[in-house]
Amino acid sequence: MRPVAILGIGQTRIDEHWDKSLKELAGEAAFAAINEAGLKRPEALFVGNMLSPLVNGQNQLGTHISDWIGMWGMEAVKVEAACGSGAAAFRAGLMAVASGEVESALVLGVEKMTDKAGNDITSALATAADADYEVEQGVSFVGLNALVMRRYMHEYGWKHTDFAPFSINAHANAMYNAFARLHQRITLEQFEKSSMVATPINLMDASPIGDGAAAAILVPAEKIKGGRIVVAGSASATDTIAIHSRRQPLFLSAAYASAKQAYAQAHVTCGDIDVFELHDAFSIMSALSLEACGFAERGQGPRLGLEGEIQPHGRIPICTRGGLKARGHPVGATGMYQIVEVVQQLRGECGETQVAEARIGMAQNIGGSGATILTHILRVEN
Amino acid sequence: MRPVAILGIGQTRIDEHWDKSLKELAGEAAFAAINEAGLKRPEALFVGNMLSPLVNGQNQLGTHISDWIGMWGMEAVKVEAACGSGAAAFRAGLMAVASGEVESALVLGVEKMTDKAGNDITSALATAADADYEVEQGVSFVGLNALVMRRYMHEYGWKHTDFAPFSINAHANAMYNAFARLHQRITLEQFEKSSMVATPINLMDASPIGDGAAAAILVPAEKIKGGRIVVAGSASATDTIAIHSRRQPLFLSAAYASAKQAYAQAHVTCGDIDVFELHDAFSIMSALSLEACGFAERGQGPRLGLEGEIQPHGRIPICTRGGLKARGHPVGATGMYQIVEVVQQLRGECGETQVAEARIGMAQNIGGSGATILTHILRVEN
Repeated sequence: MRPVAILGIGQTRIDEHWDKSLKELAGEAAFAAINEAGLKRPEALFVGNMLSPLVNGQNQLGTHISDWIGMWGMEAVKVEAACGSGAAAFRAGLMAVASGEVESALVLGVEKMTDKAGNDITSALATAADADYEVEQGVSFVGLNALVMRRYMHEYGWKHTDFAPFSINAHANAMYNAFARLHQRITLEQFEKSSMVATPINLMDASPIGDGAAAAILVPAEKIKGGRIVVAGSASATDTIAIHSRRQPLFLSAAYASAKQAYAQAHVTCGDIDVFELHDAFSIMSALSLEACGFAERGQGPRLGLEGEIQPHGRIPICTRGGLKARGHPVGATGMYQIVEVVQQLRGECGETQVAEARIGMAQNIGGSGATILTHILRVEN
Repeated sequence: MRPVAILGIGQTRIDEHWDKSLKELAGEAAFAAINEAGLKRPEALFVGNMLSPLVNGQNQLGTHISDWIGMWGMEAVKVEAACGSGAAAFRAGLMAVASGEVESALVLGVEKMTDKAGNDITSALATAADADYEVEQGVSFVGLNALVMRRYMHEYGWKHTDFAPFSINAHANAMYNAFARLHQRITLEQFEKSSMVATPINLMDASPIGDGAAAAILVPAEKIKGGRIVVAGSASATDTIAIHSRRQPLFLSAAYASAKQAYAQAHVTCGDIDVFELHDAFSIMSALSLEACGFAERGQGPRLGLEGEIQPHGRIPICTRGGLKARGHPVGATGMYQIVEVVQQLRGECGETQVAEARIGMAQNIGGSGATILTHILRVEN
């Protein structure tokens, strides 16, 4: 497999973009990445998206977007793995370039969710769960995560406020990210007094949906002379779809497996990771990801937050651009936002939330309640 | 890129499988392929599917199926390109193995359509067209193809009966395929007197939907000693989504481009192709595919049918197992049925419809009305 590098990135702000269609958002991010890469026309397009059939009435989204950006003829395809669609598309693009089948790939994550009513979106998101065994029982996606969080608190003895640092850190970091959906610091008091969504998950534990697109251009590493950011590790693993089928519902086995494989490919351990963009769809997921990837013992994830280790100057900075919690979570696009943000860190472009001397960054994107997990490690090479 | 070969295939009969769920059909085809390959557990799963979010309420279908077949942990993802999803998944699996990222891939096309009412399916299929510019005008998918056929007949002076040989050949060949949905020969009179769907397309011009799954196992070619079937060419190209945006709406430019690239990769010309499983969703598409791939001059596709050249003993046998018309068209699965059928021809397993000394076979899968087209060439190596 030939090494692959990232030549350009692009993103739109995550917002309720009522004045822009899905393809307009996609085009904005695509051209930002293409222009930054100084490329006329990538050979292939890989689109990560979850909801366009259900929410936008559009299938065949790869070609829909290659058509819109005027690159008629190019190879184009959509990749779907629920909220892990962005990273799944990135991995598909990576394999296309690594195999030699294409010389350049545009990978794009895009989602346009806010045109629909909240109930419709809740139903659409529930398609990530098991239709027969979970959704049929009436449980929503936040409901599933609430069950996990409740059990975790019971099992390991944590209070709800112990999860506050995850959200406070994310909101604080988003203040310095112009592309983030939410620009407001939150306090411990606000965290605790926020409206309940599904006990024990309140509004401050949950990430907001949004409309947005993020993109990257992949090329063979040999094409870039001098400094470059390479994909040093890429792995995907799965678990059962339904949480109740798992032997250890409080352990993200697919995060563990994909991180382990990515570490091995990159020849690093978790101690070498300078920055980690994890999938904090709910605050409980931050704890579980940190544990599965080796940054904390099982059941001890919240401690990293309480001790300040997740902040930009801490031992393992997470959500440095706001995370899903404050940057926002346009589901099928999120994985590509994470990739873009890790690149920004490795380039030293993050200003107030820049991680000092960041050389190795990790992004982890999750589909469903831990069912599909992709881990990517990016590294600066001089 | 390292050469890739097909180690095993599997399929279910296409039917109205009211007694089987999507995942049961998927499992049946998957295990048939896995068992034939003599493999315990493929490393990764690539699922081609178009409609599961809309028709089955299920996203994250890759993991849904890896979970169902009990292969917990394996990499799994869904690939979507409308009715071209099957071949798009095959190409994704091919690149995964070719890149060295995985050592074995299970590629599966699956669709479960007949639980819904016809109107719902018509609406779901319309998501392959352009939501803003085509569907918004109320045109259905068969309506779009009818416009193309009408114009083609006008432009080149063909009568409706001139398309009959495509359907008659497909139905005749399906008689010998136990996995086909329709087992009934049709006559010219039946073709002509069939119920109208959207003028000039009648029931005998149109392929039936259905439930079904087809699968193949991909491994590095070097793993197979002696006789093997390798993927000699693989290419994907696109056109505009909307037919009205095309300069030449009667020419499948994406079929031309992807076939040209696949021929070059395989070092063959169209004259070397022994058998061609094309995408006869409507009889007009058979003519257009044959023309774009070099088997007939523009506007002369129907002549191949009228002269008997498309039959198993003809110059370019097509739809040798029944094609979309009679084997059936479970949309996201179709591309994998085509691959499976080409493999059967190259193995000499097709009995009455066996193409003599078939060594090189081609499969072409189309998403939308010619918007996404994938061409694969398989070859026997001794």
